[in-house]
Amino acid sequence: MTWVLEKVAYDELAMATSSRIVFLVLDGLGDIQGPSGQTPLEAAHTPHLDRLAAEGCGGQFDPVAPAITPGSGPGHLGLFGYDPLEHQVGRGVLAALGIGFPLQKQDVAARFNYCSLNSLGEITDRRAGRLPTAENERLTELLKREINVGQDGVELHLQPVSEHRGLLVLRGEGLGPRLDDTDPQIIGQPPLPARARDEASSRTAEIVDDIVEQVKVLLRNDASAQGMLLRGFDSYPSISTLPERFKLKPLCIAQYPMYKGLARLVGMEVAESPASLEDFPSTLGETWDSHDFFFCHVKYTDKAGEDGDFERKREVIENVDSWLPKVVDLKPDVLVVTADHSTPAALAAHSWHPVPSLIWAPGMVRQDEIQRFDEHSCAAGGLGRLPLRYLLPIAMANAGKLKKYGA
Amino acid sequence: MTWVLEKVAYDELAMATSSRIVFLVLDGLGDIQGPSGQTPLEAAHTPHLDRLAAEGCGGQFDPVAPAITPGSGPGHLGLFGYDPLEHQVGRGVLAALGIGFPLQKQDVAARFNYCSLNSLGEITDRRAGRLPTAENERLTELLKREINVGQDGVELHLQPVSEHRGLLVLRGEGLGPRLDDTDPQIIGQPPLPARARDEASSRTAEIVDDIVEQVKVLLRNDASAQGMLLRGFDSYPSISTLPERFKLKPLCIAQYPMYKGLARLVGMEVAESPASLEDFPSTLGETWDSHDFFFCHVKYTDKAGEDGDFERKREVIENVDSWLPKVVDLKPDVLVVTADHSTPAALAAHSWHPVPSLIWAPGMVRQDEIQRFDEHSCAAGGLGRLPLRYLLPIAMANAGKLKKYGA
Repeated sequence: MTWVLEKVAYDELAMATSSRIVFLVLDGLGDIQGPSGQTPLEAAHTPHLDRLAAEGCGGQFDPVAPAITPGSGPGHLGLFGYDPLEHQVGRGVLAALGIGFPLQKQDVAARFNYCSLNSLGEITDRRAGRLPTAENERLTELLKREINVGQDGVELHLQPVSEHRGLLVLRGEGLGPRLDDTDPQIIGQPPLPARARDEASSRTAEIVDDIVEQVKVLLRNDASAQGMLLRGFDSYPSISTLPERFKLKPLCIAQYPMYKGLARLVGMEVAESPASLEDFPSTLGETWDSHDFFFCHVKYTDKAGEDGDFERKREVIENVDSWLPKVVDLKPDVLVVTADHSTPAALAAHSWHPVPSLIWAPGMVRQDEIQRFDEHSCAAGGLGRLPLRYLLPIAMANAGKLKKYGA
Repeated sequence: MTWVLEKVAYDELAMATSSRIVFLVLDGLGDIQGPSGQTPLEAAHTPHLDRLAAEGCGGQFDPVAPAITPGSGPGHLGLFGYDPLEHQVGRGVLAALGIGFPLQKQDVAARFNYCSLNSLGEITDRRAGRLPTAENERLTELLKREINVGQDGVELHLQPVSEHRGLLVLRGEGLGPRLDDTDPQIIGQPPLPARARDEASSRTAEIVDDIVEQVKVLLRNDASAQGMLLRGFDSYPSISTLPERFKLKPLCIAQYPMYKGLARLVGMEVAESPASLEDFPSTLGETWDSHDFFFCHVKYTDKAGEDGDFERKREVIENVDSWLPKVVDLKPDVLVVTADHSTPAALAAHSWHPVPSLIWAPGMVRQDEIQRFDEHSCAAGGLGRLPLRYLLPIAMANAGKLKKYGA
């Protein structure tokens, strides 16, 4: 069965109803056993999550496909019901979303790294010794002031991100985004020219090469960095949105720009950020009447996982559990607790492990036997193991938002 | 991997053997917990089904895809090993199958509803107040007598079904089935003209419009209904049959015309209907030597589910369990118990929940740990969660009817 046929089927079956779905996403939630023999989710005291699991149904989901460790882009596309292998969000676009840069449809965006070059122009450090963010800011200010794009109607935007990382955006008519990376991924070579992969991008390649040359001249005597490497050229992807595909009125409640950006990409409106985790329920309450799908994104589980901090990850989970009853009090028709990927504290990085998930939908869901919400229990859950892109349609079915297929 | 490739693989590996497969389909079997906290299958006393589950292997199957609620057509295509998203059976064809109308390859069939029209010709009730079946029969007799198709070589067949529903069939050379519905799905508008979607169907559209106009004239003073709405135009689909694909000699044992019709669609022969549920084993016994695949269709589980009757559904399951030993006594090589979809009594409708299934094949199946046949147990079964179209190939493998793939 091809995903193309399934997608058509889901899209054609979707109908607008008054029922509400809450999609509570604990970023990087999935984990593996730490030294205690438990995962942070197993170690956490989570009476409310456990009650939802007992009354609902659990399972484990692969964000992209088994064995694939997803970045944030593919993970969220899966969450939103898209095939991450079909729709891709370039690194440049993700960098723009990540700092809340207002990317426009025709912009070409790329991630840049400051790098170190020797007197032959060869790369000696691809990250310029992970220079301090303040140095990045100083260099970027200088470049913004001095670089002359020299092409009518083309604007250059440069934004520091952190350490050696930044965002480059070209804005203008007739710019194509199909450019190879200039980062050769190894040291001892000069940066590569910006090779265009199609005719429409050849002018963009010339502009990029000219900019990179100007950077080399401007930084030739700088102590921190002497060059710029570019990768992940892309423009804003055109994706059929959740309102178009699923007739949803979706809202994003998140604290970090990248997740708001990913949500906007699929047609969500974005609520004002909750000041703290405990404020998620009140933001939900204030927006309850105007939407029917609520993507609530909790970042701190992933941050703790990335930091290898088992205890802090456990605490974040317990924090979420403590205010979960306020979400239930709003009487959603369907409440899903899931993640965009696993970020095991023991690995301090994203991983390929499927994500534990539960669906709670009184009177609609088929209950399974699991009594707790954790990796172990979900592996025995009634939802089995499925690609993550099915979870949103399953939530829609349980919310009565999918018509019958065929007579 | 696409289903197209998989289909080729299964088809090429199939071989004819003397082993026998019984596919016992309890229509709409899957359910969700009722007020007692159990499903009808869990509440039922089923010592023989449980023995088969303990000696065999369980799993849960999605008839079309996760989250999709199948109609009877897609559900059975999945059971028979086809991708229901690839092959579709139009509502008109299903209506014909449902009343045992002998549809021919070139016929164009549609479902009709009698409707109420006001003096402007606008629809005031799309179902004519769900008029009694006797009234439907009276109107249909009148129309059959009076309508003049007025085109050489084209026959009109009209058949009442129940209440406001009926079947219209056009028979003749050069009729295309690609017509839009004339039912606008809302009241306050006149019926739509029969718009042709391709050139081959434009003459059919003219004939249909003329017939509908004649209906309006003939019923203009009738108290029960004043018009006819048509939907689901289609002709008999051309599907590679089970004998062609899988080298099976399949037999259908069913009590309702639609399931016999669906079975004929995929090349099954059809046995004389058992007079009652308890007669299924003797019908099996009488046909045992002439076939190697037996599709046994039990309708009453679905009927009870559709009626929201938990207790009756439980009783039907217990009835089936009571005569199951007689099926086992025939010594099938493989016995499968499954369903075309779930029909939870609590929802009184088809649903998206996967169907619990078991396969019993002494000496061939890998036993799992489940000890009972019910939704809970099957969710933990060794077959896992799979698309339903894999169940027939799995049965064939366990019957030794699939060769090794590759060297």
